[in-house]
Amino acid sequence: MKFGIAVFPSKEIQDLANSYRKRYDPHYSLIQPHLTIREKEDWSEEQLRHTIPKLERAAEALAPFTIHFNRFSSFYPVNNVVYMALSDTEPMKRLYETICSEELAEVKRAYSYTPHLTIGQEMNSDELHDVLASVKAKPLDLSSRIDRFHLLYQTENGAWTAHQSFLLRG
Amino acid sequence: MKFGIAVFPSKEIQDLANSYRKRYDPHYSLIQPHLTIREKEDWSEEQLRHTIPKLERAAEALAPFTIHFNRFSSFYPVNNVVYMALSDTEPMKRLYETICSEELAEVKRAYSYTPHLTIGQEMNSDELHDVLASVKAKPLDLSSRIDRFHLLYQTENGAWTAHQSFLLRG
Repeated sequence: MKFGIAVFPSKEIQDLANSYRKRYDPHYSLIQPHLTIREKEDWSEEQLRHTIPKLERAAEALAPFTIHFNRFSSFYPVNNVVYMALSDTEPMKRLYETICSEELAEVKRAYSYTPHLTIGQEMNSDELHDVLASVKAKPLDLSSRIDRFHLLYQTENGAWTAHQSFLLRG
Repeated sequence: MKFGIAVFPSKEIQDLANSYRKRYDPHYSLIQPHLTIREKEDWSEEQLRHTIPKLERAAEALAPFTIHFNRFSSFYPVNNVVYMALSDTEPMKRLYETICSEELAEVKRAYSYTPHLTIGQEMNSDELHDVLASVKAKPLDLSSRIDRFHLLYQTENGAWTAHQSFLLRG
């Protein structure tokens, strides 16, 4: 079964993100707006059992923090993703590094971890430039308290189901 | 913000349910297949804070259990819902009664609690009878271990985000 780990920002930020995702993100109906912590991976029942205590330890080691979205950006030309970007990526990177270590180290990751909230993807380059020109002109100044992360699994239709939440207690 | 409480059955059951929901349930893209424990309700931040310890106590008082879906059924003519029905509703009713008590008692509930997994709704009566005739001829014999429940909240587009999971520890 495919498992992934993500953080959901506040409802206010999700609502804004969904107003773009509805038009520009084919994953709109598969998962709510999120920041991916760990990409999806096939885990056996045994891997899942081994992983839960690791995630609990990570949650105990980390304190809640605030993230601040201050602009729209893109990974173009690496890929045609438009996203809401953070003024300071360090707290999310620490969350990533604490969770994705030891048995959860991401050995196949192609790029360094860049926390982001996708609002558009799988566009052709013309669409991407239109969207990017439109959103780059818009101010963005929204913060969200991050005090938990979620382990999710994917059903056959590509949608994600909540499996377990982990509250940051550090 | 609107909060609700639900249980997700195993991925196998979700996959089967989604194969029907895709065609017959307009809520298909808003939430994964589930059994509702508590209908959505507007909660303030303060109500949310007060409710979490209550949900933790409920989870501590309840032991994991198995549910068994043995047939398709409908609430027609009360409403045009088609659902997967349980051979024994008692364990889910106990879960409901333990969670939806005291400050979480459902004062406005119009019907007695009947645990079910909706696979079709908001159909006209002709559609309902067609679907029901088709699914009633199909055997259903699937079980799922229930060892947790989930507190979810709704964004403006009607979709649900995971807030917190509660593991049954009784």
